[in-house]
Formats: sequence, structure tokens, C-alpha cells
Amino acid sequence: MMINELLGTRLPIVQAPMAGVQLGDLVVAVSEAGGLGSLPCAMLSVDDMRRELALIRSRTGDKPINVNFFVHKPPAPDPARETAWRATLAPYYKEYAIDPSTIAAGRGREPFSAAYADALEEFRPRVVSFHFGMPPADLVARVKGWGAKILASATTVEEARWLEAHGADIVIAQGVEAGGHRGIFLSDDLTTQVGTFALLPQMVRAVKVPVIAAGGIADAAGVAAAMKLGAAGVQVGTSFLLCKEATTSAVHRAALKSQGAHHTAVTNVLTGRPARGIVNRIIRELGAMNATAPAFPLAGGALAPLRAKAEAAGSGDFSPLWSGQNASGAREAPAADVVRALAQGL
Amino acid sequence: MMINELLGTRLPIVQAPMAGVQLGDLVVAVSEAGGLGSLPCAMLSVDDMRRELALIRSRTGDKPINVNFFVHKPPAPDPARETAWRATLAPYYKEYAIDPSTIAAGRGREPFSAAYADALEEFRPRVVSFHFGMPPADLVARVKGWGAKILASATTVEEARWLEAHGADIVIAQGVEAGGHRGIFLSDDLTTQVGTFALLPQMVRAVKVPVIAAGGIADAAGVAAAMKLGAAGVQVGTSFLLCKEATTSAVHRAALKSQGAHHTAVTNVLTGRPARGIVNRIIRELGAMNATAPAFPLAGGALAPLRAKAEAAGSGDFSPLWSGQNASGAREAPAADVVRALAQGL
Repeated sequence: MMINELLGTRLPIVQAPMAGVQLGDLVVAVSEAGGLGSLPCAMLSVDDMRRELALIRSRTGDKPINVNFFVHKPPAPDPARETAWRATLAPYYKEYAIDPSTIAAGRGREPFSAAYADALEEFRPRVVSFHFGMPPADLVARVKGWGAKILASATTVEEARWLEAHGADIVIAQGVEAGGHRGIFLSDDLTTQVGTFALLPQMVRAVKVPVIAAGGIADAAGVAAAMKLGAAGVQVGTSFLLCKEATTSAVHRAALKSQGAHHTAVTNVLTGRPARGIVNRIIRELGAMNATAPAFPLAGGALAPLRAKAEAAGSGDFSPLWSGQNASGAREAPAADVVRALAQGL
Repeated sequence: MMINELLGTRLPIVQAPMAGVQLGDLVVAVSEAGGLGSLPCAMLSVDDMRRELALIRSRTGDKPINVNFFVHKPPAPDPARETAWRATLAPYYKEYAIDPSTIAAGRGREPFSAAYADALEEFRPRVVSFHFGMPPADLVARVKGWGAKILASATTVEEARWLEAHGADIVIAQGVEAGGHRGIFLSDDLTTQVGTFALLPQMVRAVKVPVIAAGGIADAAGVAAAMKLGAAGVQVGTSFLLCKEATTSAVHRAALKSQGAHHTAVTNVLTGRPARGIVNRIIRELGAMNATAPAFPLAGGALAPLRAKAEAAGSGDFSPLWSGQNASGAREAPAADVVRALAQGL
């Protein structure tokens, strides 16, 4: 069964939720174009989310949308690790004349919780998706209680089986090509991460629920190839990053349009958790995976003033420049055009 | 243009050359079935190669075949690094009661050379393929002199452009899913390695020569998907590893049929150069990428007695268990059946 039959959209195309580079505008544009627009809430407070959902509702009427959450366990503060991390960053603080004692606690990422569920229930979105596993069973039951379908990301066949057993209605096969945070949650061994070409067909055979392909799909040909490998739909992120409806920063947009977009890496230095982005100065100099980076999402805090100063000077040296391994589909066009182009592959 | 038009085969399907697990039997079976059988010569002396080619010729007549070579630069001996490596392995020597002073120099891998070209010219194979770059221009000219077409592996768009500029007639897009040695040669940064889904279409747009897809293609659906992404043909290795015509060892066959085949890693501990294989004890315990491993192909020498003793006891703990990330197509069947199954995707 194709996912549009299950989710009520016209097309089996999901716009990947991308915290930090989009809000409701992109959701509205994609859902109006027949895809499934996704609102990422990891960086939104409950009130922010409520405001954004109200705005979306006022503009899309009853078109299905997806509301996305991280379900990580927030880490306990670890002063020793934070000290080590700031020591790693000390040369940069010196270069930018930043007094590290003035750095406030970083902007966090909130996991799904009863408070979010309360606010979400006011809107009863047709789809809710989770990254890094599934929330506790009682929260899963609440979401299903209003008839929502649950999507969840799997980076291995084992994770797909786990998600299916814990209530996911549809599993997203997140190939290693995908941009942003890896959904990996049953392991911290990155050698377990699999390319879309290998992951998708094996996952399709391993679970009974439909499987959405994600990672490396940039255009109609990518959609067609994913369908050949048994996908029940596709999730596409990077191709939307240059759309006017995205809030992608100027340095991020410039990076995506540069030759540098050909080289991405899975890195923990930007947030503390493995995520794929365009290789920039901090990744190059600290190494993509750096043992001193604090646990997710704490690594980002100490970077914030560096990022702010660099971005003010037009540089993405310390910014998360999330991108998948195939940015060739990113176009400065309305999101509806991107959806239409992808749909040609169906 | 599909590669079969250029290479004279019936099908655009290349059997990946797999040194150590196949000789001419597999070449004959695949070429007779309409694909392009490949003889890997990295572990064959010139005389071994000549004997194998004579055997193949006597059994396939004028069916096109591919003869494959590594084109690495053999490393200078590095006694300090060898000592460090043996220190890393010391606990295993103790466990297996091996006196490390008795270990002979390891079986090497020979790069393509004038001596191989001399012997090769006696047979004038229709296709010659190279891994880790291209040989010097004079050797390229010799191979082209008898009308052979040259295939070469690229792991990045940049490598594909380089190979095209240096005389490759067809480029193989080796996605990160692929088993065995990564063809990477312009960098030693593994973050440059790209999944097939992202690599293939970007490479197709970047070069004028036809592009063969490799990595993660296990069956007809994989072939069909690769074609949707612009491939002019496919190269498949892992799906042939259980064929009776392969010389795959008993421990390797057992690993491929086990649940363990779901977890592969790109590792340098088995040969000194990044290669994808099923995670076994040595990868798990030393880490997939270990800084003490000597340069390719020297790392393998110190492992040889461990491998021999373990294999004699039915264990692949120290063996290269090369496999791609999708072993689901490997079947205990004649290679011709595998070729026929793949061809259904055309």
C-alpha cells in the first residue's frame, strides 16, 4: 500500500522535517501541493509549536500534515566534558575574541513529552513522526488515540523491526546519504549505517508496515528508483533547502550552491549527535567525529557565539550546514515546484 | 549508450572482480551467461594469470571477458609500523600460541605493470579494469593498443572526472555499499565516500563516458533502480559469492549466510586499505579503522597465521569476509542463474 492511501495525501511524498531551517511556510506549501508537509518541533517550545500549528491550520484547512519530534533522552549535565569541549574550542574563542565565561547554556532540543502531546491534541494532526526511536507507550497511545498515523526513522533493519513492534505505522528507511541527524538509536556504532540502495529493499522485506525511502533522493529519477526498490513513498529534505518557503540561512544557502556541497560528513561536533552536513572549517579541523563533543544536544551551546560571529561575517565555518549527499535537486524555486518535479518519478 | 554495446556482451551486467574468492570458473560462467566475467589479478603472479587466461580462453572462445588489476603504489617497508602492528596483534599470537618471529612476509598484491601487460597482450582481452586509479599513460596506451576498453572505479565525482581525463572508457560508480576494497584514490578521507543513490546520478551528469553502478545491487529490483538513476550497466559482486563457481572459503560462505552479514564495516585492519567486509572479531576488537595497521597490502601478512589457525578451527575471526551491505542476493546457485535473475531488472 502506498503511503498516500494511509495518510490521506494526494502524493506519496513526505517533506523531511528539518529543525532550524523551516517552519510552517514550507509545511503549507508542500501539503497544498499534494505532498505531506512536516513541521519539526525539536527546537520549538510548546507555545511556539501551538502558534505555528494554528498558522498552518488557518492556511491549509484540512490538508494532512506531519508534526515531527525528537525522542532522545536529555543528557545529564557533565561539567568535565563541557570543560574539555571548551578547551577544544579555545583557539577559536581566542581568534574571535570571545570570553567563554560569558557563554550562556545552549539552545536545546526538546524531546516529545506529555506537554507537547496536550498541545498537539488541540490540532489532531493526521501524522506524527519520531526520530531517535519512539516515545513511551502511553504517549504513543495518546497520539494514536486521535487517529494519527505514526512515522518513525530506522537506520538499520533491526531498528525497523523495533519501531514496528513499538507501534510505528510506517517506517522511514533513512539511508546513510540523508542529511541532518541520523535517526540511529539502537546502537552508537556508525558502521551499522547503510546506504539507501542496500537498506531499503532489505527493510521492505523485514517489516510488514510500509517503508518510506529517505537519503539521496533528489529528483524524479530518485523517486522512480526508490519505487523500484519497494518503497511505499519517499521522504525528501535537501531538495527543499533553497526554496523560498524554507528559512535556510544565507551561509547555508551559499554552501548548498557551492562546489563544497559535494563533500558532506556525518559529524558530532555541531550538536553532539551524528548528523550529516557540508564539511566546513570546524568539521575539517576537529574531525567529523570528535570524542570531546558533549552529548546531544549540548555540543551546540559552546559553538553558538562562534557561529553568530562567523555568520555575521558571512561565514558558515561554525554553522550546521545540514545536507544530504545529493544536493543536486535543491533549487531556488517554490516548494510546490519541487513537489511537482519529484512527482514526475511516480 | 549501454555498456553491452561498447563491450560486446549480450547484457550490461559486469561480475565484480573479487580477488581471493574467485578464479576463471566464475568468469567463464558469467561470460557464457551473457554478462561480463571478470578475472581479478591482484593476487595472481604473471604466470598464474597466463594460466588462468588460457583456461578461460579454452572454455569461452571469443566471449568478452574483463581482466582486473589494482594500480596502487607498493609501499616501502616500514619496520617501526610493522612492529607496532605486531604489538597490536600480540594478544592474539599468545592466544593461538604463534611465535611472531616465524611469520613470513605476507602475500602481497601486485599492481599492474609492463610484465602483466606483456602477458595480457597474448590474450588481448576485450576489457581491462583498474582499481585505485589508472596505470601510467604508457601502459594505458598499450592496453588500448589492442582495442581493449578500459573500466575504472570511482568513489567520488572528482575521481570519475579524473579517470575520464586519464583514459577510462567507462567509469564504475562504486557506492559506499559495495563490498571489498574501496576504489578511493584521490583522498584518504573516508567521509568523501557516497552512497550509490547519491553518487550514481551525480556521476552520470559529471562525465561523458558511460557509468556503471556498483554497490548495494543484489537483484533485479536493484538493477532496475540503478537504470532509473542513469546507469549504463551494473557491476555486482556479493550476489555471486555463494555460487559454486566462486572459491569463497567455508568460513566466508557461512558468514554470508548468517545474520552477521547484516553488519559490515569499511575496515583497514585486514589489508591496510579500506575495504568492506562482514564485522568479525578482529574488526570488532581493533576497531574498523586502526591507526597501527601497516600500509596496503602489508597489514595482511601479520594476520596470516592467525587466519590460518582460526579457519582450520572453522572460525572467520581473522579472515577478510568481504561483502557489500546487501548480501540478500547471494544464492547457492550456478552463476548463470544469478546473471539471469539480475537481467530480469533490465
